[in-house]
Parts: sequence; structure tokens; C-alpha cells
Amino acid sequence: MVLEPTDHLKPNKLPPDLPTKLRITLIGSGNLATSLGPALLKAGHEVREVYSRTAAHAAALAGKLGASPLSDLHTLSPGSDLYLISVKDEALPEVARTLKVTGAVTAHTAGSFPMDLLKESSSAYGVFYPLQTFSRYKELDFKEIPVCIEANNEVSKRVLTTLATSISTRVSGLDSTQRKALHIAAVFACNFSNHLYTIAHNILEKHQLPFDLVRPLIAETAAKAQTSDPRHAQTGPAARNDQAVIQDHLRQLATDPDLQKIYKLLSQHILRSRK
Amino acid sequence: MVLEPTDHLKPNKLPPDLPTKLRITLIGSGNLATSLGPALLKAGHEVREVYSRTAAHAAALAGKLGASPLSDLHTLSPGSDLYLISVKDEALPEVARTLKVTGAVTAHTAGSFPMDLLKESSSAYGVFYPLQTFSRYKELDFKEIPVCIEANNEVSKRVLTTLATSISTRVSGLDSTQRKALHIAAVFACNFSNHLYTIAHNILEKHQLPFDLVRPLIAETAAKAQTSDPRHAQTGPAARNDQAVIQDHLRQLATDPDLQKIYKLLSQHILRSRK
Repeated sequence: MVLEPTDHLKPNKLPPDLPTKLRITLIGSGNLATSLGPALLKAGHEVREVYSRTAAHAAALAGKLGASPLSDLHTLSPGSDLYLISVKDEALPEVARTLKVTGAVTAHTAGSFPMDLLKESSSAYGVFYPLQTFSRYKELDFKEIPVCIEANNEVSKRVLTTLATSISTRVSGLDSTQRKALHIAAVFACNFSNHLYTIAHNILEKHQLPFDLVRPLIAETAAKAQTSDPRHAQTGPAARNDQAVIQDHLRQLATDPDLQKIYKLLSQHILRSRK
Repeated sequence: MVLEPTDHLKPNKLPPDLPTKLRITLIGSGNLATSLGPALLKAGHEVREVYSRTAAHAAALAGKLGASPLSDLHTLSPGSDLYLISVKDEALPEVARTLKVTGAVTAHTAGSFPMDLLKESSSAYGVFYPLQTFSRYKELDFKEIPVCIEANNEVSKRVLTTLATSISTRVSGLDSTQRKALHIAAVFACNFSNHLYTIAHNILEKHQLPFDLVRPLIAETAAKAQTSDPRHAQTGPAARNDQAVIQDHLRQLATDPDLQKIYKLLSQHILRSRK
């Protein structure tokens, strides 16, 4: 598919009159696309089309955004300034291969894929990576969400910077290596932490105790990390090398070898971090 | 040391006129004692004496609470309704052995020690376990902090319930087995999560990236767990069994075998939880 150039964007040539309100095609309808869409409208941009492989998903999100729904990538219209790809990681390479755009910018939102995945999709391309955990049903204030952008040239840089600064006050330029490191850091800080909450939930459930008991603790642990260095906020048996408690806890966990292994490994890592 | 009975508290006999404002001796000056002290005063109780092995610490906290400082356990005065022991876990058994009280309640604040540790310290004893991560320099609102109490008889139950409900709206009765399970759950949810924040911090630092980039993510992950079941909030590569990303991350972590091991173990555990 080759799209026509839009009148104000020539590939690799920085337009003098780059609009601050962008015409956007949103490719994807997952948690991020669903959270991002309303933020784009709120910032004054126009979402022209929404693509999803599943027609009903495309229709639902397009309806919310006043856009046209599409479920066939080959029928995307030309005329957008930006084709923003926010699909599942596993679907991204195929979408990148299919998408060919002239005279507009393409960008993806994936932490772990390099920018160059899009080098055949358009001459101006980049990455627009908002770092947050998105839920389909919870509206988030994008102003505080870090948005990391990477661009292959001045055109994509201008378009992605315009977009990012219009919705967030926390915009950074990150290259693909840094973004991957950030993604890995985010897996530890967010995905793995949430799984530890789940483990806590399961331990409590086994003893007929409500998860509510640890909720204030979870909130305060995260609150501390907002203002201080987590290395200095570390508490607990391993942080004070309290072997009596650690060994007692390991004995208690003997009925669940997986949990015992996780407890041991993380305690050892905390102990080693103390030195 | 044998303390004289206070006039309104006879061991094992429920006093009809149990005061709602208690006279308290605080044994310990760590993070919990330092946070708890002001909350006790605010609720109208009197802190009469503060003990710490380190005289300067006893003086500092006693000064803040209008109490007398002590650094020798054998010089504790009689006359308190409650002798509340909030020392490091490793020091607790020795303190429990030394403390002998008649006509008053003794209680400790440790998650992983059984109530019976105090059975030789007084005839009415128990556990007063506020579940939160305390910082010496941050005042917390105790109203929202779950306080778990356990008591060996009606006297200690009444005294500990009076104390707990005077500072918190979230008081539960937990036995020693449940409290230990809760403590283990708290290690996962709080201590280990905080260590994952530290790991994220170190990964970012290695790539010259500020920790600020993941702070909103940490806050939102914890915020989600306040209202929903963390099992349903799980996101990330392992939650969607995205092996391409997982393997790529593991390759990136090859330079740090410890981190690689933690990443692998937690990802496997998330994968298994999906089934």
C-alpha cells in the first residue's frame, strides 16, 4: 500500500509549517491505544481512522474517537500526518512489513522493538513509547506519564515531539538500546512487583486472610519510591540479615518449592546488595 | 525485675474500669517505635518511659514523647498498664527473657515471633502488630494501618484492643500462625517489591537513565492493586507468554547472571500462574 504524501509533509524535508494539531491513524485497539486515543483528542489532534484486526474492536474504539473503523490494513487511507502502531508485540513485525506510507511519519509504541523495524514503512519513522501500565477501563492522566521518543530524521523527530509534548510534560529522547533497558527495568519494577502482590494474595488466601491487610503496605512501599532511592528504603529480614527469620520463612514455604526458591533468590540478592 | 501491679489491672481478672487512656512503657526506639510513639500520644495515651539499649536513642525518642529515657532494662519502673516491646527481631528473645511484669500487660510488635515468647514476662500478654513499612523520618497516619492483635487472655485482649482501636480503624485478631503467614506475604509484597525497584534503578543507572522514568509506573502498579485483584492486573511479556521478548530480555541480562536468574524464575512463575 502506498499512501499519497500529505501536502505539508515531504519525507526527509523539515516542513516550515508543521501543524501542531496532527491527523493521526491509530493502528491497534489494545489497552494502550484505548488509553491514548482520548488523550490525543483532548490535546486537539484528530484521529481519522482506527485499525484493528478484529472489526468489533476497531468499531468500538473508532466510535469513541469519532474516527472510521478499519479491519483490513490494506484499506488504510492516505492523508494522515502520523500512522501510529500500537498493536501486540507479536503482531508488530507483520504490521510493520505491511505498512508502506509515503509523505507521512510511522511510529510504533513498543519498548523492546528497535526503531529500524519501520525503516521500510516510511522514510520518516520513529518510536513513541509511553511508559505506563494501561488498563482498558481506567482513564489515566497522560501529563505525568513519561513518553520516550526516538526518530530517524528531523521530520519524524518534529512530529513525534509535537505529539509527545502535547499530551505529556515528561518527554525524553531515548535510543533503541536505552529503550530496551528501560523496558527491562519496567518489567522488574511493574510486572514482577505485581506478581509479588499476587503471591502475597495467594499466601493470605491460603490462611483465610484478606488481601486488604497488605494493601496499605503496597501503597506505602510505592509511595516511598516516589521520593527516595529504593536502595535506601529497603527493609525486611534480608535487609537486616536476620537469618533466624529468613530460615523460619523458608521452612514455612517448604510446601511450595517455587515460592521457596523465589524467596531464597530475592533474599540472597538483597543480602548481596548490602555489601 | 518484678514490677508492682497497677491498681486497676489484676492479672487474668478483667477489670471493670479499664481505662481507655493507657499508661505505656515503650521498649525500643527503632522505626516502628518512633512512628508509633506520636500516634500513641495523639490518641490520648501516656508514654511514661522509653527504653533503648543506646542511651542517646532512648533520650531522643523519650524527649519527643515527654517520657523518661532508660537504657537499662532492669531499671524500668512499675506503674504502666502496658509494656510494649518494639525492638529488632534479633534482640526480642533476650528482652522477653529479661522482662518480668506483674499486674500489667506485655506485648511485642514482631510479625514472625509467636505470642508465647512472652509467657514468662507477665500473666497477661499478647502481640500488637501494625503492618506497615515505617521510616524514621516520615510520619504516617495510623488510622489506615492494619493492626493485628493476639492476646492470651481477656485482660490482654481488652488492653490491646483498646490501644489498637484508639489509633487505627483497621484492627484484626490474628493468631500466631496467621500472623507469620501475613509477615511472609508482606515480605513478598513490600520488601521484595522494593528490591525489584532497586534492580530497576540499577539497570537504568547503567544506561544513564533516571529512575524518574519508572516512578509513575511503580505508583500506578501499586494503585491498581488497591482496588483490584493483582492476578487480574498482571501485564508484561510473561503474562502474555511473549517468548520473543522474554528471550530477548534474558539475552540482554546475560552479563548479570543473578538478574537473569531472577527474571527467569519470576517469568516462569507468572507463566505457570496463567494456567
